[in-house]
Amino acid sequence: MGKPAEAVDQRPPDQAKMERIVSLCKRRGFIFPSSEIYGGTGSVWDYGPLGVLLKNNVKHAWWRAVVQQRDDMVGLDAAILMHPRVWEASGHTKVFTDPLVDCKQCKQRFRATDIEGDRCPDCGGELTEARPFNLMFKTFMGPVEDQAAITYLRPETCQGIFVNFKHVLTARRKKPPFGIAQIGKSFRNEITTGNFTFRSREFEQYEIEYFVPPEDADRWFEYWVQERLRWYLALGIKQQNLRLRPHCEAELAHYASCCTDIEYQFPFGWAEMEGVANRGDFDLRQHQEHSGRDLAFFDEAEKRRYLPFVIEPSGGVDRTVLALLADAYEEIPGGRGAAGAEVESVLRLQPQLAPIKAAVLPLVRRDGMPDRARAIYDELRRHWFVDYDEGGSIGRRYRREDEIGTPFGITVDSQTAQDGTVTVRDRDTMEQVRVAGDRLVEFIRDKLGEC
Amino acid sequence: MGKPAEAVDQRPPDQAKMERIVSLCKRRGFIFPSSEIYGGTGSVWDYGPLGVLLKNNVKHAWWRAVVQQRDDMVGLDAAILMHPRVWEASGHTKVFTDPLVDCKQCKQRFRATDIEGDRCPDCGGELTEARPFNLMFKTFMGPVEDQAAITYLRPETCQGIFVNFKHVLTARRKKPPFGIAQIGKSFRNEITTGNFTFRSREFEQYEIEYFVPPEDADRWFEYWVQERLRWYLALGIKQQNLRLRPHCEAELAHYASCCTDIEYQFPFGWAEMEGVANRGDFDLRQHQEHSGRDLAFFDEAEKRRYLPFVIEPSGGVDRTVLALLADAYEEIPGGRGAAGAEVESVLRLQPQLAPIKAAVLPLVRRDGMPDRARAIYDELRRHWFVDYDEGGSIGRRYRREDEIGTPFGITVDSQTAQDGTVTVRDRDTMEQVRVAGDRLVEFIRDKLGEC
Repeated sequence: MGKPAEAVDQRPPDQAKMERIVSLCKRRGFIFPSSEIYGGTGSVWDYGPLGVLLKNNVKHAWWRAVVQQRDDMVGLDAAILMHPRVWEASGHTKVFTDPLVDCKQCKQRFRATDIEGDRCPDCGGELTEARPFNLMFKTFMGPVEDQAAITYLRPETCQGIFVNFKHVLTARRKKPPFGIAQIGKSFRNEITTGNFTFRSREFEQYEIEYFVPPEDADRWFEYWVQERLRWYLALGIKQQNLRLRPHCEAELAHYASCCTDIEYQFPFGWAEMEGVANRGDFDLRQHQEHSGRDLAFFDEAEKRRYLPFVIEPSGGVDRTVLALLADAYEEIPGGRGAAGAEVESVLRLQPQLAPIKAAVLPLVRRDGMPDRARAIYDELRRHWFVDYDEGGSIGRRYRREDEIGTPFGITVDSQTAQDGTVTVRDRDTMEQVRVAGDRLVEFIRDKLGEC
Repeated sequence: MGKPAEAVDQRPPDQAKMERIVSLCKRRGFIFPSSEIYGGTGSVWDYGPLGVLLKNNVKHAWWRAVVQQRDDMVGLDAAILMHPRVWEASGHTKVFTDPLVDCKQCKQRFRATDIEGDRCPDCGGELTEARPFNLMFKTFMGPVEDQAAITYLRPETCQGIFVNFKHVLTARRKKPPFGIAQIGKSFRNEITTGNFTFRSREFEQYEIEYFVPPEDADRWFEYWVQERLRWYLALGIKQQNLRLRPHCEAELAHYASCCTDIEYQFPFGWAEMEGVANRGDFDLRQHQEHSGRDLAFFDEAEKRRYLPFVIEPSGGVDRTVLALLADAYEEIPGGRGAAGAEVESVLRLQPQLAPIKAAVLPLVRRDGMPDRARAIYDELRRHWFVDYDEGGSIGRRYRREDEIGTPFGITVDSQTAQDGTVTVRDRDTMEQVRVAGDRLVEFIRDKLGEC
């Protein structure tokens, strides 16, 4: 687990593959560019009918593993709009900036670090000195647009946890070590965006703030790095596409004393999916000072009062979804079917994560097969998202489902009328077994590991 | 179902009860004021550890009933930030306004409809003419804060559905009648807020846009009014607290040709939980004109091209949660226990919606009872959110769980060591039955109606 970077398979970037994934996502309804009929909203994305199911499955898996099944964790759902003083305390109004330069001639604006030389890359004009540009989206609350009404869209979900720390502690009678977990949207007015959903202006995070006695922080940091890596492996992501990258000191954010990224090898290269940071008591101390509220924890057993240290595993939901799509996407030149000539693709998602669990397919549109298939479809849909498809040859329908990662293809054929059995085709092995129609729910439940 | 207003029980508003619910929500971890350590963010709320579970259960119930179990519906998760032209097409930049007046003397701003007379209610100064104030939150995308960069936080989720209509149609091969369903945050810079989470500036909606042939619109409108009312009843909301209120013509929004609200009798009075509107083809037509894209549906069977009409059942997630809390909240003066003197409260939530499904309680902290209770707790937590509590008398612990709506209190007592059984106490009847420890999962699953 977590081999160092050198030992891991290194592939050259493959932008063409990336583009085919983007194209599949749009064509089949995973991810669309936001407001595409108006030319798109800069680096903002909408999840389509299949995308929302995949994303929900990922969020549900995280919530179950991180909150439901742990004794030391509770959930939270804080708002996107917060009091502006939160961002003073957190340091965001001051340091959450990119240096920008303006061209004095054509008035264009650039990120200083993207510029080579000292002239405008477009018109050759003179550039201003670099000035800090805050990456938070600004808005105004209340009826008057003045300085006092300015607030921001949160650039990270974790501050909602810190400001509620004391409320949660009291309401749920918790004591360190314990964590507060949250899933929610964050917004960053990024200057340099790109790589599909990887760096977008509106994105979803899953964050844990895990509060520990200061002397235990290093141990818990190590624990969470391994625990979170283990979780990504449990989602079925290939080990050779995962690595840990400890940050060097110069990279550390202003609040962190140490940080390790969990990186995935995307088609465009290695990049962060999740960061695990030791934030020390930076945040609670800052909020204590700025709010004047006592945020310390009093340990009754040890008669000791302290500000807990915080270990933060902070992951990107959209990045995990993108990693899962890239990891599961496989192209089969010439296809897998008998007469296949075109390139076919299969999405080898873990069945638990697949948007659609099964497709019910009448072999032909006669002999009562559609009715029988419909009845099975109606029964299965009580439990899972299931497709029904009677259009085109059976091979073509299997391929359509392979492309979106449906693990089980259930076919009603002529034998079904005789003995009530159907065939179940496995997406990955393409093997078919006959299963009694009235045992299908149990069969699929068993395959999905649901108990 | 849906008795007219006159026939329904009418209670006087009970603000004191409302305040006790608000207090319970904060104390036990359902809902906190956002950024409360900084004095709160105006009319924005955070969901605490129990609140997020209740809200998730409500959203899950909606998603399952409205998307998973229907053949004619698909899901979507569009972004909050959209192209600004969306709001020109929808009419929001022009008509989504409140009339405001300014006091020329003290510079305060008021909603014109809140003012009686023609002078400032605070200082008596002269007032300006009423001017329209847009209720959308404005922000700037990209590095330059100018007119061209202005965009808005969506004030309703449905526009994300309309702009993706054609994508979804194609990707999932749907045809009218069919619907697109979505859950997500919306934002309105309300001038008049209040009644706890009822009218807040950041809120969550669940919306269905149901696309139908124009000639079928009236029929589908009636269908959805009844279907949505039925769903609220299925959540366990008392029938006498629900009513339908058809809008009079003067109330209709600019896009709607007819609308019926599903209202709940909150402690502060009757108010809208969901609105079902016939939006006609207003939205698709507007987006077609503004984007220049053809948004019509071509019916292959009938060889007919048309813009579908849209029936929109649009509900507030936060309002449903608040209605459920108010509906389930019951005070028992003198308490239900043997020596009860104080007022006790019970949250009679439907077990499927309760944040915590069961509490595991060792009768006393000795004779191995805590260990046995822990083992049961660990087993149950694989399936549901479950509490473990060993602090205080058993009566006190039952009351703590009653207060947050936990349907089952599981007690490990001296008999457990002998025959492996535990007592299961029903929150509502307070009856206790003995159940074998290894049959608890089945017992609870059965009570929850899970199959």
